Amino acid sequence: MKKYAIGVDFGSLSGRAVLVDVSDGSIVASSVMDYPHGIMEHSLPCGKRLPAEWSLHHPADYMDVLEHVVREVLKTGGVKAGDVSSVGLDCTASSVMPATGDGVPLCFLPEFKDEPHAYIHLWKHHAAQPQADRMTEKALERNEKWLQAYGGKVSCESALPKLWQVLEESPRVYDAMTYWIEAVDWLVWQLCGNATISSSCAGYKYLYCAPDGYPSENYLTSLDPRLAHVFRDKCSLPVAPVFSKAGTLTEDMSRRLGLDPGTAVAVGMIDAHAGAPAAGITGPGEMVMLLGTSACLMMCGEDYHGVPGCYAVKDGILPGLWGYEGGQNSVGDLFSWMLRECVPEHTLQEARDRQLSLHEYLTELASRQKPGESGLLALDWFNGNRSILMDSGLTGMIMGLTLRTQPEDIYRALAEAAAYGARMIIDSFREQGLSVDKLLVTGGISRKNSMMMQIYADVLDMPVGVLPSSHGSARGSAIAGAVAAGCYSTVQDAIRHMAPKEDRVYQPDPENRRIYERLYRLYAKLYRAYGQDGHSVMKDLLAVKRGEAQ
Amino acid sequence: MKKYAIGVDFGSLSGRAVLVDVSDGSIVASSVMDYPHGIMEHSLPCGKRLPAEWSLHHPADYMDVLEHVVREVLKTGGVKAGDVSSVGLDCTASSVMPATGDGVPLCFLPEFKDEPHAYIHLWKHHAAQPQADRMTEKALERNEKWLQAYGGKVSCESALPKLWQVLEESPRVYDAMTYWIEAVDWLVWQLCGNATISSSCAGYKYLYCAPDGYPSENYLTSLDPRLAHVFRDKCSLPVAPVFSKAGTLTEDMSRRLGLDPGTAVAVGMIDAHAGAPAAGITGPGEMVMLLGTSACLMMCGEDYHGVPGCYAVKDGILPGLWGYEGGQNSVGDLFSWMLRECVPEHTLQEARDRQLSLHEYLTELASRQKPGESGLLALDWFNGNRSILMDSGLTGMIMGLTLRTQPEDIYRALAEAAAYGARMIIDSFREQGLSVDKLLVTGGISRKNSMMMQIYADVLDMPVGVLPSSHGSARGSAIAGAVAAGCYSTVQDAIRHMAPKEDRVYQPDPENRRIYERLYRLYAKLYRAYGQDGHSVMKDLLAVKRGEAQ
Repeated sequence: MKKYAIGVDFGSLSGRAVLVDVSDGSIVASSVMDYPHGIMEHSLPCGKRLPAEWSLHHPADYMDVLEHVVREVLKTGGVKAGDVSSVGLDCTASSVMPATGDGVPLCFLPEFKDEPHAYIHLWKHHAAQPQADRMTEKALERNEKWLQAYGGKVSCESALPKLWQVLEESPRVYDAMTYWIEAVDWLVWQLCGNATISSSCAGYKYLYCAPDGYPSENYLTSLDPRLAHVFRDKCSLPVAPVFSKAGTLTEDMSRRLGLDPGTAVAVGMIDAHAGAPAAGITGPGEMVMLLGTSACLMMCGEDYHGVPGCYAVKDGILPGLWGYEGGQNSVGDLFSWMLRECVPEHTLQEARDRQLSLHEYLTELASRQKPGESGLLALDWFNGNRSILMDSGLTGMIMGLTLRTQPEDIYRALAEAAAYGARMIIDSFREQGLSVDKLLVTGGISRKNSMMMQIYADVLDMPVGVLPSSHGSARGSAIAGAVAAGCYSTVQDAIRHMAPKEDRVYQPDPENRRIYERLYRLYAKLYRAYGQDGHSVMKDLLAVKRGEAQ
Repeated sequence: MKKYAIGVDFGSLSGRAVLVDVSDGSIVASSVMDYPHGIMEHSLPCGKRLPAEWSLHHPADYMDVLEHVVREVLKTGGVKAGDVSSVGLDCTASSVMPATGDGVPLCFLPEFKDEPHAYIHLWKHHAAQPQADRMTEKALERNEKWLQAYGGKVSCESALPKLWQVLEESPRVYDAMTYWIEAVDWLVWQLCGNATISSSCAGYKYLYCAPDGYPSENYLTSLDPRLAHVFRDKCSLPVAPVFSKAGTLTEDMSRRLGLDPGTAVAVGMIDAHAGAPAAGITGPGEMVMLLGTSACLMMCGEDYHGVPGCYAVKDGILPGLWGYEGGQNSVGDLFSWMLRECVPEHTLQEARDRQLSLHEYLTELASRQKPGESGLLALDWFNGNRSILMDSGLTGMIMGLTLRTQPEDIYRALAEAAAYGARMIIDSFREQGLSVDKLLVTGGISRKNSMMMQIYADVLDMPVGVLPSSHGSARGSAIAGAVAAGCYSTVQDAIRHMAPKEDRVYQPDPENRRIYERLYRLYAKLYRAYGQDGHSVMKDLLAVKRGEAQ
């Protein structure tokens, strides 16, 4: 009898479910639904205005979406509740909120519904940057060992700076909450009645650093004495490893979703990381790169290695292994910027005449060039550098411009810069002793732009595999559920059966890779000069922009 | 009784005459006419194809234009031939051709009319670059003293590389010519029957370096033994100082132009340099900048000072003084490039909605910014660097780009880069002991873009005067004619009466100049790093582009 697993992926704008055949990973049905409230950036539903840099979600949306998409896939797939082994979930992170000891989001309580801090602080809520900066500063002062595992800097997107912001700005909310909980962990709790924190969330977002655990009381006191016992006070849920079983569906939830009580519920995952098993990553040596507006590079290792600007989390991606994650802040965004601000009328017109999209037309033109032919070299730091420099102040640069420079030259130079930036991260992994033998790429760009994939292969000088469109994260959650339900004896076994294989591999071109080797060395020179020298022209320029004294 | 002077300026596409009141410089009439053959870049009139980088003029066009525009200004101005004191001429240079001992251009002879080398080699004929490179190389090897006066490099636009090209490619033309003559000197000869070479042409274009004269026989032999006596063989006309009288109109020419025989004819000038007296420059300390597609900076000095990348020529601009000339290869061209290749549809649409030109609209947006606000810093080397680096391989660069960078940010950054480049040249003059107390700017941009003029004042930290539109070069030629005719006892006197005064002066803003001082220091860092280090990333990048081995 066939068994099925449901995976649900909660993104920034919508949630999606897939119904997957456990035996071979084939997708039987999928369903997607936008969040009724969307992202709240300017005001709460009650009309209350939000300051700049805020970004909230409404937890009620998650339950609405969950019910809808699960019922939809069951209906469309024509699958009986009894044949569904499991539900697995993943979500953006740190998307975190205050809840009572019973798991009720504070924003559900009438006395807190007009309080912005009572809602989910979405990953891209950036208003806790001052708190994050003070955390980094103190950690550096005290030489905190864990800082290295987080790339040498506390991200304002992680859970603790956001919690500190709540404490400073709304002590009432801080006092009222029992848990400062990730949306995905809250969802799992709602489904099975057991409250846990996923090892992935704990590790990547709560500074839980195996084997030492959370940061010390001394460090926390140095930030703010009221934070001394913050993990015991507000984040005391037990850590549960990803791919394990959190529990089974409650009676109530099984009714709401149209599933059987007793259906296994997996520990929640972070969306990007759920993409790694979905891409077929089963162990060390294999890296997966998720290409979207930004790039996320993930891999696993047997042992701990500190890679600058990259996270290292035990059980973070696959159980029993260290999960490494690095990233580039802008890749797809580079092209979006260029298409929005830098493409002249003649190019637009030519693309229209050819009935091509701008991306297609510029790619066609840029594909005719040899590496180095345009004479351009760019730095991909248009939105700062995450790995390996962790410096959000860094900026983009284009060198080699002439009166003959064409839009397609700039387009290709940006693609090359993204590839050089990825190589810089991969080289950094290798320098720390992690071997990277295989790169798999997922995300829209990987299917749409073969020029760019060939550039990656040539610049990285290794084969680059591209995966078929596969509902990445949702499939990863479905795999986790199948493992949690005991359908496979090992995680690796489940991945091998349920993840799609790459259907296209780009091989490095011998001539191109020789030229790119030279160009990459030039990129690396600029990288060092402007990224690592504290008094570089780029940093001084930023100081002028910010109006800082000399 | 009122006296009038005619000045005629021969440009690249057309010639223009002005009829000027000698007493106060007011322009009574002007006339312009395109060259019938235009610039011949692809083929001769007979249909014979021209190789790449060629650029020729037909000398018959010059006589046609001369006759037409002189007759036109007399007619329009309603001035009698007897009231015209003089004719002065200026022309692009080195625009040079072979002629017989009687002053007949070889291309007028039937046996040479299908021979490209028999025509005027226009200033922007760049096909003699290999000869220019070999000349520089040999001069460096032999440590030739004069090289410094030409900015350390022989320009392919000057007369001798072009002549050497003729010798190598068409010995028949080389042998047949008696004179390798500038168009302006040939015109003066036609007008008055006396053959001379203008001190300006000799100095700036024929390597005539006072007090030593032309380069030595030893140097010339080292290039090619056939060139040993090239100046005696092909360039033996006597050098006559600018502002002096070459002669008086011949009977024949007076008939053709409708002027009296005996009308004074001034020694010819180079067009850009004729713009200096027209801008009111009378001696040391005053600099004039001619802003067009490129920028030309000129001033006079009592003594010789070698300024890197700048020309120093005795009697080159005003008689009795050293004429200094530096330049930037692209200024207006930077904006043309940007408007052509880098302005997105939304900006075009906004400008149309506002019924503004793109320049006007982008200037309006960019004017709202404070210095440094955009965080951008550019290098203005989109067409290489002339002064002070003399390096055509250098390229442009934009640093500080982010996902929020707007077209107006780039527009302003290019304007600022042009101003930094000008300051680099002016600082270079000062370092060599030449004081620069006053800057006057002429050319279309100076009247059209007050934001840019304010940026120049702020970056240069000195008042910048702007002159009314004044038919610059043609007026300068008219002034030279008036001096040649004896209407004034000194050149300075003539200039003081006949040149217009600046009608707007931009004063440095105290706050802006403080910020620009910081930004200029950052520009200077990039300038040194990429312009002066032979193994900079920029130069290595160029090597990759050119396919050169490492």
